[in-house]
Order: sequence, then structure tokens, then C-alpha cells
Amino acid sequence: MAVYTNVSDEQLNAFLSNYEVGTPTAFKGIAEGVENTNFLLVTDQGRYILTLYEKRVNEHDLPFFLELIDHLAKGGISCPTPLHDKEGRSLQTCAGRPAALFTFLDGMSVRRPTAHHCGELGKAMAEFHLSGSTFQQQRQNSFSVKGMQQFYKDIEGDVNSIEPDLRQLIEEELNYIETHWPEGLPAGIIHADLFPDNVFFLNNEISGLIDFYFACSDFFIFDLAITLNAWCFEPDLSFNVTKASRLLEAYSRSRPIDKAEITALPVVSRAAALRFLLTRTHDWLVINEGALVAKKDPKEYIRKLKFHQSITNPGSYGFTAR
Amino acid sequence: MAVYTNVSDEQLNAFLSNYEVGTPTAFKGIAEGVENTNFLLVTDQGRYILTLYEKRVNEHDLPFFLELIDHLAKGGISCPTPLHDKEGRSLQTCAGRPAALFTFLDGMSVRRPTAHHCGELGKAMAEFHLSGSTFQQQRQNSFSVKGMQQFYKDIEGDVNSIEPDLRQLIEEELNYIETHWPEGLPAGIIHADLFPDNVFFLNNEISGLIDFYFACSDFFIFDLAITLNAWCFEPDLSFNVTKASRLLEAYSRSRPIDKAEITALPVVSRAAALRFLLTRTHDWLVINEGALVAKKDPKEYIRKLKFHQSITNPGSYGFTAR
Repeated sequence: MAVYTNVSDEQLNAFLSNYEVGTPTAFKGIAEGVENTNFLLVTDQGRYILTLYEKRVNEHDLPFFLELIDHLAKGGISCPTPLHDKEGRSLQTCAGRPAALFTFLDGMSVRRPTAHHCGELGKAMAEFHLSGSTFQQQRQNSFSVKGMQQFYKDIEGDVNSIEPDLRQLIEEELNYIETHWPEGLPAGIIHADLFPDNVFFLNNEISGLIDFYFACSDFFIFDLAITLNAWCFEPDLSFNVTKASRLLEAYSRSRPIDKAEITALPVVSRAAALRFLLTRTHDWLVINEGALVAKKDPKEYIRKLKFHQSITNPGSYGFTAR
Repeated sequence: MAVYTNVSDEQLNAFLSNYEVGTPTAFKGIAEGVENTNFLLVTDQGRYILTLYEKRVNEHDLPFFLELIDHLAKGGISCPTPLHDKEGRSLQTCAGRPAALFTFLDGMSVRRPTAHHCGELGKAMAEFHLSGSTFQQQRQNSFSVKGMQQFYKDIEGDVNSIEPDLRQLIEEELNYIETHWPEGLPAGIIHADLFPDNVFFLNNEISGLIDFYFACSDFFIFDLAITLNAWCFEPDLSFNVTKASRLLEAYSRSRPIDKAEITALPVVSRAAALRFLLTRTHDWLVINEGALVAKKDPKEYIRKLKFHQSITNPGSYGFTAR
């Protein structure tokens, strides 16, 4: 969302000497991607995005992410793909940061997704999961149950400043999720951050997915639960079961969702809500010096979590496994 | 430098219905222009910049700026020019803010200008001044001597937190400049913010100027003094007289600089340094909530101001009026 690292014309030229992309005619920092610094690069050959990886992304994970994107693109998933330099590398260095140059993906995110958009998302996510299932590498989810417990330790003393009793809510929820966490569900590479910002549309169809820097190995239903949280609540935080139903139905046409996954959906949706409640609470509490990202209200995810806590029948999500 | 106002897809579509620019294929916030929010818009017809005017720009000044840009563009000055909507207006509304849609200017700013770049700048600035001299409207410089005195009142209590004795330095300087301010020099529309960020180059030639939101009526030599400050000091803050000389010589070939202007150059350069010292001090002291701009160190302009104070002979700027 912000430009953390500046790139001078000299640094840009040094970086571009590794590629065959023509002569630059425009270069502008763009407000996209919370974790990294991104620039639009226009050359006489086309448009590109230069991404500089900032400290929030673990450098050791970068080969995983870049190779995953290459794998997905080869499998027909539309996304910005890294260019390979003259020596075949996709990971380079620019202005002292790890960096990669990507193709420019046309399309625009939607602010208020409709049921139609949710159906498109379901279909694209299933294709993503199927394509990722032939990728040979794995990466642990930093926001697994254990990961969340660990993450929470750093902020537990301060969370009540957001809302009274938030500490109790989170701790009880961490315990509940740990106790009720399902086992043996279909798993593979998930995107883990498919918010509307990260899904581009053109003419009401998905033109591609972006921002794979939370991708990891986990239950597919966890990815679905993240999108139920991110796409299916209205601005007043009521749950739109029509949208959820379209998302799950469309997904299931490509990769059928089984009964065990649907049975687990309430607890996994609680975990997905808790995951964003924790990171938003963290970001809210930590004053970020330098280029500041517009902070997102953690309370939204308290409300969403409470919705999922109230679910007694998985059918309430608008989908029945066949 | 930052995105202050978000524009949803619905708001963008509503805005674009006023224009005939085709169907959008990409839309991204860009980090350009400290005062405003800017977006790159790509459509099937071309590239554009959407500017939303934020509160730091006085809405009443917008017609002046937009008509000035139209005037300059007609006079052959290369710059992003506002599109006129179906009813002929260049000033519109988007997401509740005053807004305008501009052509996309190719080119990139240079981080470390060379003497060659300074010469190019001098030539472009003279053309700008000559073109602006046939523009019928006027706008007072907010950072005239009186304007600076006014501006200083809001921060005088806090400036010593930047550096001991800064208060004394500024107050003595304000007095000196008021007492020694020249009269009757050649005047007209000046850009008043021609920093390297606002000058685009392609193939080592200027492709255009941007960001006219400080443009005002003042002595031409004041614009030159601003660029001497912004372009002719080295990173170690030593003054590069070769660059200054190239800038002034190139300028003077299009609009000859007269003796009275050169005589006034030291005091006007002091005023130009003080103007940026004051605004940078202000920005340093005020913690900007929301989208934060990378703050620029005010001390740089203390050093530059002291350089100009040390000048006893205007010839030290490397130029002699003929």
C-alpha cells in the first residue's frame, strides 16, 4: 500500500540491465501490496511491475513464492508472472532489496463484490487449488493454530485497548480452535489472502489473481473460509448467504467439497476470522514509522468471528455437500 | 506521495461516464504528488492520470491551475494536460473530491541531476516563463515575504526542537529578506516547485514538467533561485557552480537575465531556501495522520540558506548578465 524503498534512475537502470525489456519511458511507485514496494514500469516494449521485497516477507520464502507463481502460470492460472533475467533467475536485487520484475496484469479489483463476483471467485479458487496440487514444494502456514498462538503472545498485553474483554475472547477462541481443529481434510497450496484487493476483474470476469506472499500448504477449506469472511459479509457486517452459496457451489463444480470439509467449515471460518483479527489488532497497536499503510479496523473481525461462533449448523453457509 | 482518498470501482465508473476515454483495464494508486491523490488509469484507448485534490490545495485555486496548464500546453509546453468532459469542463468531482483527468506524460525524474540536466532545465524553465507571460490570470505567491512571515507564526514556538537557535536564524532571515527584497524585477507566472521530482526526462532530454499546484505570479528570478537550491547542491551540500552556470546560461539564451536580477540573486536565493526550510520544518513538526509522506529533513535547507548568506558577490553563482 505504500512505497517503502525508493529506487533512483541509476538503480533502475542497473537492475534493468539484467533483462531484455527495452528502454523505460515511465516509472512510478504504486500503492499496491501491503507487504512490498511496487513500481509501475513502462518501457517501449510494454508494462511491468517491479516488486521490492521488504522485511515483512521472509527472504528464504521468496524462491517458493516465485516458483509457485511460475508453476501456476504454466498451469493456466492468470497472474503477474516473474520475468527471468538473462541468466534465467527470477529473483534479483534492486536498490539493495530482493526484487523481481513481473508482467502487468490487466484488471481491477471490486470494492463491493456481488454474488456474481463470488461465483467467479469460487471457480478461480478451485482452479488455483487444482493447479497448486501438482506443485512439489510445501510451506508451513504461519497462521496455523500454533502460529496464531505464537503470534498472539507478542500482543496479548495490549489487545484490551482495542475493546474490553478482547483478550478473553481471543484466548477462549484459540483454545476452542485448538481443541476442535479438524484432521485429514483435503489439503494443498492455498492462497491464504484472497481478499477482493487481490482479485482482478475485466468485464465482470476474473482476469487474474495477485499477491501470493501468504501462499502456504493447508486445508483447501481454510482458503474458502478466508474468502467467506472477506467477500460474503455486507458493509453492515450481516452475512450474505446467497454470496456464500454461489462461492461454494461454483468452487465445488471444479473441486467437489466433501462432507467432512463442510462439517469443519464453522470452526475453520472461526480460525480464518481470528487470523485476520490478530494481524489487524497487531497492525492497529503497532505504530508503523515511515510509509504508513491505511490501518484496517480489527473490530470488523470481532463481529465476523462472533457470527461464526453462533453457527450451529454448517448448512447455514448455504451449501450442502453431495 | 501517498494515497489519501480511495476510489471504488463504482466511483471510478461514475466519474468516467463524463468522459470519452474508453473502458478501464487497470487502475492503481500511484505515489506521485505530495499534495494530491493520483491514480494511473489504463483504458483500451490509452493511459491517464486521475488526480483528486486534497485539502492542502485550495479549491478556489483549481480553475487557475487547470486553465494555466491548458494555456501552457497550447503554447507548446509539454505537461500532463486535463481532459475536458463532455460538457467542456476540466474540473470534475470523484469520490467526493474535486478531480481532474490528465494525459499521461512519459518520462522519468532524475535522482542526481548532472550539469547537462541543469542546462535542459534552464531552457525548459525559460520557455515556461515566456509561455506563462501571455496568461491573463494572476495568483499571489503564498510564500512571498509576507506569506512566509505569516506561515512562520504557526510554528515559531516549536522550531528550536529541530536545531538550537533555529528560531533566531529564521527571524533574522525574515527581517533581512524583508529589508532587502528587490523591486520591479521581471515577473510573471512561475512554477515555484521545480524540484527534480517534477521534471521528467526521456533520452536525456526533458519530456515535460508536472505538478503546477504552487504556480503563482512572482519574479522569474525566484523560480531560478528555487532550482539553484534544488538542483545545484551536491549530496554533501557543497554548491556546484558548474551546474548553476549551465542552468542560468541555458535559461538566459531564451529569456535574457538582466543585471538587476543577478544583483538580487543572493537575497532571492536566501528567500527560496527559507521558503523550503519553513515548509519542511512545518512538515517535520506536524505528525501527519493517515497516509504519511516521507518527511524531508529541514536541516538540508539550513545549510543551503547559510551558503547563500555567505555570498558577497552575485558572480559566485557562475553567471554574469550581459
